[in-house]
Amino acid sequence: MVGNMDNVFEISLLLDFYGMMLTPRLYEILDLHYNNDYSLGEIAEQLNISRQGVHDNIKRGKAILNELENKLGLLNKFLMQKEKASSLLKVVENIDSARLGEKDLQQLDQLKRGIKDMIDSI
Amino acid sequence: MVGNMDNVFEISLLLDFYGMMLTPRLYEILDLHYNNDYSLGEIAEQLNISRQGVHDNIKRGKAILNELENKLGLLNKFLMQKEKASSLLKVVENIDSARLGEKDLQQLDQLKRGIKDMIDSI
Repeated sequence: MVGNMDNVFEISLLLDFYGMMLTPRLYEILDLHYNNDYSLGEIAEQLNISRQGVHDNIKRGKAILNELENKLGLLNKFLMQKEKASSLLKVVENIDSARLGEKDLQQLDQLKRGIKDMIDSI
Repeated sequence: MVGNMDNVFEISLLLDFYGMMLTPRLYEILDLHYNNDYSLGEIAEQLNISRQGVHDNIKRGKAILNELENKLGLLNKFLMQKEKASSLLKVVENIDSARLGEKDLQQLDQLKRGIKDMIDSI
C-alpha cells in the first residue's frame, strides 16, 4: 500500500514505528500533537517557537514518516498480522466449548489469551 | 535488543525488512551474497568491481541494516510475534480432537492453518 496516512491514529502508529528516525525535536513536536493532544498554539508556547514553525515541523515530520512507510511497508505488514489474529480469535470463539473436557477448556482459554495478547502487542 | 546481526539468515531478514533503505547498488550486492549465495569473487566479476570493493560494500550495507534495526527494532518485534504464534500452534495441537464434533474439528483445522500462515508470513 503506497499512500498517505494522515489521521491522528495513523500518525500515532507511524510515530510508534518510525519515530526514532526523526530528529528528537521533530519527534517531540509530533509526539505532543498526536499522542498528547496538544494544539499547535500550545506546542508553540511550550517550545517557544512560532505557530507557523510548529505547523511546518508537523508537516515535515508526517512526510518523513509516510515516506518511510511507503518504502518499508512494515506498519502495513503488522496491521495485516493484526487482522489475521483478529479473525483467528473469532474462530476460537466459535468453537463449541460444551463438548470439551477441563484440560481442553484450559487450552482453549490459553489460546484466546495468547491471540488477544498478539493483537494488543501490535 | 541492541546488537549486531551478522549471520546469513539474520542479514537476509534484515534485507527483507530494511533493504529499501539501501542504495540499489548496495542492495544488489547484499542480495547476491546473502539471498543468492554468490561469493565475493563472483559478485566482483559480475559487477566488474574489485573483490575488495565488494567486501567494503557488504560491510557498509550490513552496518546500515544493523543500525536501522537497532534504532527501530521492527524485525525483533516481528520475531517475537512469530515466537508467540509458534507457541499458540503447540496449544492448538494439544487440544484433544477426539471429543470434538465435525464443525469444531473444521474450526480447529482453520485455526491451525491460520496460525501457520501467520508464522510463515513473517
